[in-house]
Amino acid sequence: MVDDSPLLLVLELSGIFVFAISGGLVGVRKKLDIFGVLVLAGSTGLGGGFLRDVLIDATPPAALADWRYLLVPVAAGAITFVFHPALGRMERLVNIFDAAGLGLFCVTGALKAVEYGLGPVPAALLGMVTGIGGGMVRDLLAGRVPVVFSSELYATPALAGAAWAVFAHHQDWSQAWVALPGVAICFGWRVLAILRNWRAPVPSGPASV
Amino acid sequence: MVDDSPLLLVLELSGIFVFAISGGLVGVRKKLDIFGVLVLAGSTGLGGGFLRDVLIDATPPAALADWRYLLVPVAAGAITFVFHPALGRMERLVNIFDAAGLGLFCVTGALKAVEYGLGPVPAALLGMVTGIGGGMVRDLLAGRVPVVFSSELYATPALAGAAWAVFAHHQDWSQAWVALPGVAICFGWRVLAILRNWRAPVPSGPASV
Amino acid sequence: MVDDSPLLLVLELSGIFVFAISGGLVGVRKKLDIFGVLVLAGSTGLGGGFLRDVLIDATPPAALADWRYLLVPVAAGAITFVFHPALGRMERLVNIFDAAGLGLFCVTGALKAVEYGLGPVPAALLGMVTGIGGGMVRDLLAGRVPVVFSSELYATPALAGAAWAVFAHHQDWSQAWVALPGVAICFGWRVLAILRNWRAPVPSGPASV
Repeated sequence: MVDDSPLLLVLELSGIFVFAISGGLVGVRKKLDIFGVLVLAGSTGLGGGFLRDVLIDATPPAALADWRYLLVPVAAGAITFVFHPALGRMERLVNIFDAAGLGLFCVTGALKAVEYGLGPVPAALLGMVTGIGGGMVRDLLAGRVPVVFSSELYATPALAGAAWAVFAHHQDWSQAWVALPGVAICFGWRVLAILRNWRAPVPSGPASV
Repeated sequence: MVDDSPLLLVLELSGIFVFAISGGLVGVRKKLDIFGVLVLAGSTGLGGGFLRDVLIDATPPAALADWRYLLVPVAAGAITFVFHPALGRMERLVNIFDAAGLGLFCVTGALKAVEYGLGPVPAALLGMVTGIGGGMVRDLLAGRVPVVFSSELYATPALAGAAWAVFAHHQDWSQAWVALPGVAICFGWRVLAILRNWRAPVPSGPASV
Repeated sequence: MVDDSPLLLVLELSGIFVFAISGGLVGVRKKLDIFGVLVLAGSTGLGGGFLRDVLIDATPPAALADWRYLLVPVAAGAITFVFHPALGRMERLVNIFDAAGLGLFCVTGALKAVEYGLGPVPAALLGMVTGIGGGMVRDLLAGRVPVVFSSELYATPALAGAAWAVFAHHQDWSQAWVALPGVAICFGWRVLAILRNWRAPVPSGPASV
């Protein structure tokens, strides 16, 4: 969305695709019907970008102006509906692709926020929101506390990648230097977190009631 | 909202009224207080239009610019608060009226999205969102997975009605030909689903964990 | 936001701070990790203003344009993460400060809505939403039905304070007469509700199923 290169488009649609599969799998496990699975797939694939676009007033969201952004999550949802047993068994692989989507979205989300005039701190936060927002919407619709809040190290890598992109953009570095290390930081950190089962710290001591 | 005819206004307000009653009944069953019942009634009556208006940037939403759109769901909520035993017994009748509201909202929602420059596919989707969004907001606020995802054939009729309206509009047909068959398709299909207990397909086979 | 006086800024940031602490405490009790606690703190502190700004199209929301609005809830969340046992024991005191935040937000929220051209009834409602929205977002993210719907007399005081502000503003009274009684009405009523354990009425009779 920050660039019209065909490569970026393919990457973005791939990110939406894997996010949508993770949403569809949650729908299947919650025993939703075909419509519920498609909506969860679509919300997970597009939710982060929607949240960002509504907050920075880039409405209507890009996904509503370009049919390819709608077709991809619908296709992913339909594929999940039919092939969920196989996809569920490959979930670790899906998670690796999901990490790639996260890396891409946090960077493109942050740069779009910069383009719309936000300062560096809000832009980095919106980059993170673009990456994690789809999963949060998925979990809210599926009636569970967002897994990003407690079960996984997911948001911090996204914030780090977004922060790099904003920082490098403000140094006027080349687009490759803005984007690639940002994606790599987020992707690498997230993959390590998956492989080594890293978690974020939890409060110490019992909670008062 | 696509037309200032008094008939359309009455129809829209009637749709908001029955949607709001369905929301108020959920609030009563969840043992909420008067405020909770009124908020659930209001969210159910107006939520779909709010979602649409925020996404197409038609802000402030129509319901905030015209006090009649606020008065109707508040009145419906108060009536439900007091007369919930009788209304609960008539729920099948409420559901038939709800189907009429769904038919109306999916058509007016789709046409408003077209008016704001959206393409045919997003416009049809936003029509569906206008119809089903209120019920989704109601269920999220009431702490349950939206029933539209699993228990009822509800969204597909709305999408079909909205798609008709967008299609007919692009053929430049008369307003009657745009609106009436769209409402009829959605209403008829939904009423049949209620009477015959139709469901959407669910995934086959056990979900992997 | 309706005035650039340093006093108002300090009051607003204080309100955000106590709201954020209440959000952080919920996060600790739900056993979320540091990120979840920070997000709940931030959503509770800023959620009401975000909802209002998106609905009246004052985007990007003020909190995204001024880093102080972001720093305060993050600091409150971090403090809660570390000192939650002590804060949890002082919850009654936190609730009194929360009532002050509620009084302030319902008034500033209503006046901002008036400034953006909304009529008196929607402006008063948006003032209430500004006050209670953060807590509603907190509860949705934490997976529970908003407490404002059933457990506490919380929304009515906010609506009363907002209604006063809108009414006094339309009389062209001085800023002090617009703001101070509005804050006092909401704060006093809410504190009485806490001390005397007042509740809003609930539906009578069993709910039909």
